Amino acid sequence: MSRLLLNCDIGESFGAWTMGLDAEVMPFIDCANIACGFHAGDPSIMRKTVALALQHGVQIGAHPAYQDLAGFGRRSMAYTPQEIQDLLHYQIGALDGICRAQGGRVSYVKPHGAMYNDMMAKPAQLRAVIQAVAAYDASLPLMLMATRDNSAAQALGDEYGVTLWFEAFADRAYDNAGHLVSRQLPGAVHHDAQVILEQALTIARGETLVASDGSPLLLQANTLCVHGDNASSVAAVQRIRQALTPA
Amino acid sequence: MSRLLLNCDIGESFGAWTMGLDAEVMPFIDCANIACGFHAGDPSIMRKTVALALQHGVQIGAHPAYQDLAGFGRRSMAYTPQEIQDLLHYQIGALDGICRAQGGRVSYVKPHGAMYNDMMAKPAQLRAVIQAVAAYDASLPLMLMATRDNSAAQALGDEYGVTLWFEAFADRAYDNAGHLVSRQLPGAVHHDAQVILEQALTIARGETLVASDGSPLLLQANTLCVHGDNASSVAAVQRIRQALTPA
Amino acid sequence: MSRLLLNCDIGESFGAWTMGLDAEVMPFIDCANIACGFHAGDPSIMRKTVALALQHGVQIGAHPAYQDLAGFGRRSMAYTPQEIQDLLHYQIGALDGICRAQGGRVSYVKPHGAMYNDMMAKPAQLRAVIQAVAAYDASLPLMLMATRDNSAAQALGDEYGVTLWFEAFADRAYDNAGHLVSRQLPGAVHHDAQVILEQALTIARGETLVASDGSPLLLQANTLCVHGDNASSVAAVQRIRQALTPA
Amino acid sequence: MSRLLLNCDIGESFGAWTMGLDAEVMPFIDCANIACGFHAGDPSIMRKTVALALQHGVQIGAHPAYQDLAGFGRRSMAYTPQEIQDLLHYQIGALDGICRAQGGRVSYVKPHGAMYNDMMAKPAQLRAVIQAVAAYDASLPLMLMATRDNSAAQALGDEYGVTLWFEAFADRAYDNAGHLVSRQLPGAVHHDAQVILEQALTIARGETLVASDGSPLLLQANTLCVHGDNASSVAAVQRIRQALTPA
Repeated sequence: MSRLLLNCDIGESFGAWTMGLDAEVMPFIDCANIACGFHAGDPSIMRKTVALALQHGVQIGAHPAYQDLAGFGRRSMAYTPQEIQDLLHYQIGALDGICRAQGGRVSYVKPHGAMYNDMMAKPAQLRAVIQAVAAYDASLPLMLMATRDNSAAQALGDEYGVTLWFEAFADRAYDNAGHLVSRQLPGAVHHDAQVILEQALTIARGETLVASDGSPLLLQANTLCVHGDNASSVAAVQRIRQALTPA
Repeated sequence: MSRLLLNCDIGESFGAWTMGLDAEVMPFIDCANIACGFHAGDPSIMRKTVALALQHGVQIGAHPAYQDLAGFGRRSMAYTPQEIQDLLHYQIGALDGICRAQGGRVSYVKPHGAMYNDMMAKPAQLRAVIQAVAAYDASLPLMLMATRDNSAAQALGDEYGVTLWFEAFADRAYDNAGHLVSRQLPGAVHHDAQVILEQALTIARGETLVASDGSPLLLQANTLCVHGDNASSVAAVQRIRQALTPA
Repeated sequence: MSRLLLNCDIGESFGAWTMGLDAEVMPFIDCANIACGFHAGDPSIMRKTVALALQHGVQIGAHPAYQDLAGFGRRSMAYTPQEIQDLLHYQIGALDGICRAQGGRVSYVKPHGAMYNDMMAKPAQLRAVIQAVAAYDASLPLMLMATRDNSAAQALGDEYGVTLWFEAFADRAYDNAGHLVSRQLPGAVHHDAQVILEQALTIARGETLVASDGSPLLLQANTLCVHGDNASSVAAVQRIRQALTPA
Repeated sequence: MSRLLLNCDIGESFGAWTMGLDAEVMPFIDCANIACGFHAGDPSIMRKTVALALQHGVQIGAHPAYQDLAGFGRRSMAYTPQEIQDLLHYQIGALDGICRAQGGRVSYVKPHGAMYNDMMAKPAQLRAVIQAVAAYDASLPLMLMATRDNSAAQALGDEYGVTLWFEAFADRAYDNAGHLVSRQLPGAVHHDAQVILEQALTIARGETLVASDGSPLLLQANTLCVHGDNASSVAAVQRIRQALTPA
């Protein structure tokens, strides 16, 4: 079984508001996607989150977003490709600044929410994101979504010399293009712990999933997106971690 | 005559709003104190400002501030020393991110507005700022205000291994402690071009000024703070630059 | 000649940043569209702007926007219809609060920037805006864009009992649907003072304009959008005011 | 026993972040201090909170704050008295706008956090707050802190014709001036349910408390500040409500 990194959105508290069980999930993940202040995470939250990641030897990823705190970065916004790059450089740099002060470094990038969705939907935006990473530090991998056919994204990554880490989901149903089934549709989200664990293992073994139309779907993924929202999702991460760890 | 660096607040536009004649003043200065998004400067403004500085070979300083866009960072806010450090790391990092994307680097730090004033008034805050710079990159100088006696600040800088650049003003009257005379008082601001130029040269030559009580005042300064707000202040900078440049 | 109200975006400064010649244009307009803090205008700017409008007997319109200060409310954002209503109630109320403290009242509503454009492009959003106005105070007119056929908008206004004020532009070319020609295209913006004045008078007289394809275009407009950005646009407003005023 | 209103901070969620058990505590209180967007509460949260208050027949109070979302309005900021008034008019109006859309109205004002503390500490700020309420609507009571001697505040209220509602705390120890004992000191906060209930009843009966130095302290209070942060504080509110309700 190849190594499948577990990545998780982390540091999404803000000011007096707490979100997520960061301390509980951190021991079980490989990669922490840390909010950079535009959808969540203020400088003090970021400092604490980085400290927690460093303590557990977890890789620190910048998790930049559109500037929309009230919308948690989930609303699409009409930025130009140049503005997307500026947003990325600012936020990656800000998190890197917090890291440097503690002897760490940002080691990859994963856009958040609507910035992520728009990047997957619009080639011009994916290009902007990849360009931005290349200009900042071409040795940083970019995390994006694995689909049935990753080749267009891969070609863009190759063009700019940026490594792509494709991510898959263990708790979501896929359609036959390898896109997530909309949360509006029944069966879009897996709630059964055993189903989630099986899907994680299937992806980790490089075996085919069954898409929502019954067709086989092979996702070539480097990393699995897991969640630390609540006790049950942390338990799921812990089970996945154990199952993935060679005896 | 020793080398006196000219520093200027730059990049203080925001979104659709323009402030300052950045392009006009940039050719005449050595050090650009670039706003980092908390009192002014959004990521796109920062990108353009950094490009302008790099084009003119001007050193890029982070000009971090309290988070108060509506107040332009001029209102004192009750941050803890730890929060001050977090604000600094975030904003220095953000500007450094914008710089790195263009092959540049932040090369010094100068706090803005109320953060600067509070740093000069409260030793605990000066310590926090120096600690923050040391933790980020101890090779970055910190710019702060020259007074009659710089020794307490210097001792703190030495304690953390941070170089201090003391700045003086050519267009402001000083009291006998070497503090700026309050703008509320008559004669606080020099408006006469010749007076400004003379004060600049006096400081550059390491000669004594006359404080507001008539006593002699020697300011040991590494840099002079100049302004690019309007055409007349840019003209003043140009005159100072010419006068300071060896024939 | 029927009475054509002159409306102008006003109060679009923010904190330390100034935009527009508000004091210069205020004497010549009927309706001031005052920014409410989400794209421009902070509480203190709003207070000064309301005072200026009251002094000149100018009607005060709420000019609410998407929450995007860095983008000046010009970027489309994916709000739900319910969120649009919430944004409107908050911002209309905020401006009304500033007005009440000075003995004034908000007397109409005109959405700003992308909120305005999206309202014209998406019937569900126009419905949300009209519902919001009706729920706040159905006696407040809503200002929106006159096109060749205002009937669909008018039907929505009638459904909720909200008066619509249709606005036209003197300095923009129209296509044959009565939409503004894109600024990307040549001839989209009139720069000649005489052309602007003629178009204003043509609209005021209820006569037909010539659309960009040469076809006649009748715009039934209650108000003309004018600009106070700079000295030349203020001069244009003054000329239009004089031409529209009966001798 | 005179009627002692129970007031509670409510609506302090923001965007995706939840704070407080608003739905649980609302049935037991008389007055909901609703956040107005500057320290907490976005327009959509405010709409839901107002709806909840109206459903339970609870009075709606504006709970305005300094503009400091990351600091939850708890950091003192150096606003001028005029700016304080502007902040109040904007925020009271914004909440009133949300209320009007649902057929409600703001019925009193209670500043939040540092704005409240600074108002109690600085007579010029108390005057600014009272002036702001008077200018907005002099029929709205202002809620502020009861101390041993309320006469100076009362004189200011009388000067502007603004009713003052003095509030007391059941879960905090008082010093002999009738100020809250600092949270830094032992015994500052009561955690024992019976102690809290007894203090509430003592205040309600108009009887004397025992100050931290053992002296008797009579607080003349119109309202008691209660908390809906968690299940145990909600249970405390329920007990106080039952004890205060005549059989």
